[in-house]
Amino acid sequence: MNKILIAVIGGHHADAPTLKLAEEAGAMIAGLGAILVCGGLSGVMESACRGAKKAGGTTVGILPGKDKQAANEFVDIPIPTGLGFTRNTLVAGCPDIVMALPGKEGTLSEIGFALSEKKPVIGLKTWDIPGVIKVKTVKAAEKKIKQLLKNKL
Amino acid sequence: MNKILIAVIGGHHADAPTLKLAEEAGAMIAGLGAILVCGGLSGVMESACRGAKKAGGTTVGILPGKDKQAANEFVDIPIPTGLGFTRNTLVAGCPDIVMALPGKEGTLSEIGFALSEKKPVIGLKTWDIPGVIKVKTVKAAEKKIKQLLKNKL
Amino acid sequence: MNKILIAVIGGHHADAPTLKLAEEAGAMIAGLGAILVCGGLSGVMESACRGAKKAGGTTVGILPGKDKQAANEFVDIPIPTGLGFTRNTLVAGCPDIVMALPGKEGTLSEIGFALSEKKPVIGLKTWDIPGVIKVKTVKAAEKKIKQLLKNKL
Amino acid sequence: MNKILIAVIGGHHADAPTLKLAEEAGAMIAGLGAILVCGGLSGVMESACRGAKKAGGTTVGILPGKDKQAANEFVDIPIPTGLGFTRNTLVAGCPDIVMALPGKEGTLSEIGFALSEKKPVIGLKTWDIPGVIKVKTVKAAEKKIKQLLKNKL
Repeated sequence: MNKILIAVIGGHHADAPTLKLAEEAGAMIAGLGAILVCGGLSGVMESACRGAKKAGGTTVGILPGKDKQAANEFVDIPIPTGLGFTRNTLVAGCPDIVMALPGKEGTLSEIGFALSEKKPVIGLKTWDIPGVIKVKTVKAAEKKIKQLLKNKL
Repeated sequence: MNKILIAVIGGHHADAPTLKLAEEAGAMIAGLGAILVCGGLSGVMESACRGAKKAGGTTVGILPGKDKQAANEFVDIPIPTGLGFTRNTLVAGCPDIVMALPGKEGTLSEIGFALSEKKPVIGLKTWDIPGVIKVKTVKAAEKKIKQLLKNKL
Repeated sequence: MNKILIAVIGGHHADAPTLKLAEEAGAMIAGLGAILVCGGLSGVMESACRGAKKAGGTTVGILPGKDKQAANEFVDIPIPTGLGFTRNTLVAGCPDIVMALPGKEGTLSEIGFALSEKKPVIGLKTWDIPGVIKVKTVKAAEKKIKQLLKNKL
Repeated sequence: MNKILIAVIGGHHADAPTLKLAEEAGAMIAGLGAILVCGGLSGVMESACRGAKKAGGTTVGILPGKDKQAANEFVDIPIPTGLGFTRNTLVAGCPDIVMALPGKEGTLSEIGFALSEKKPVIGLKTWDIPGVIKVKTVKAAEKKIKQLLKNKL
């Protein structure tokens, strides 16, 4: 599963259970051999990156600003865009699969964008949007991702 | 109310009642002296532009492709971006107010983006998203817009 | 020549002769019935807009920031993008023809981008780049534009 | 020199000596421990990536289209943007240093953009633009990069 990109999206502020899910999700993605893409900042993004790094993965942070120092410490490849929140379309548009955790309107914009680009979106305790593949655990997300990648590749 | 921009967003395929609402919305926006911004294509975008032009207004179409000929015939100022659906962030991000009609995931991405940019979003028979100001008629939308512009300017 | 867009690009700081050229260029573009597109800020952009408005034209300012108040006072349609200088690709990519006046690296990036998009670029005392159609006066630019639009439309 | 990004820009068609330079440049960048960023396609981009991979480096390809399969085979991290040539502003805007090899207008747009963002641009047999740091060999480029990174970090 070389060069598979999976995004984790979610709030830059998040409660402890959400951060735990994000870390598990990052680890799961790294365990699959996929590259983790995210918005590069704090909260869900940071925890997902931490999880991926602990599991030996590679992390990409597509940042809104011009300064790569804004990336969380677990980002391997910071991409400072200077595009502001328009960078959301890159986070949601570049990966093969998007995994959505709890987040606010920015997360919603990414879900909408990913769906309009016909990307599979796996939702875990996030916005209830038709078209999102709902799962209840990271384990169930992993199973879905494996199915999707088999069908797709 | 000079140089006020109001976006109308919604599906490029739409049923007759929705198209009628879009045309009314366009006319209402032109009647307020505001500039209508939209994605420049068919469906809700086209009907909103038609309504605005009938009412003597000005219309801007921010297009996904590079070819301005894709704009509907009621667009005064076509802006071909070549950005694909990333142009949604411009449609939702440049105006003072966003008015959302029925649409699919593209519309959802615009609602999410506008909310994350702290833009007022007025929703008429569209996605039920917290933070959207829900109205039931174009008349009610007009009233809301007048209030918002008074508070804002 | 309905809905023809012509961009004027050049420095946001400029000397008096350049500003005079920009104003003439704006007036010429408006006189042709075309819509003036620019980056919306000061210097060449402002003078071009002033010229276009004096001549009864329509002006579009595609702004780097999110705040339309940054537009010069002669911009009819401000498009705040929040894209930073990435908005240069819209200024150079959306019009039918680009007219380049003296400017710095931003202007250079726009010339390069317009040429890579196969847009005609008319240069007046600007960067000496192969592919740019060089002219010495606004009058000569006008003649070139008329030729280009005849061939193109 | 962790998480230093250096872009190599240049034509997607290139002659054999240029491709050789690109491969050397990629190897040099990887040798410095920096991440290679490029536009992800053929020509200079592909040779730079090949060089970086042979030297054990990491490569990022920021693609104009939506399909990551367009990336050359030496790209580790493909970022399909769907932005068309507007992606040039990301290639030129995200790295710490831009190294320019021979190329056409797209390369010129990237040089202009990088300079307008105050990025150091090292030029090797490329466009003769004021502000570009001209070098004659990859070895000389390496020396310059080391100086720049010392001053910068």
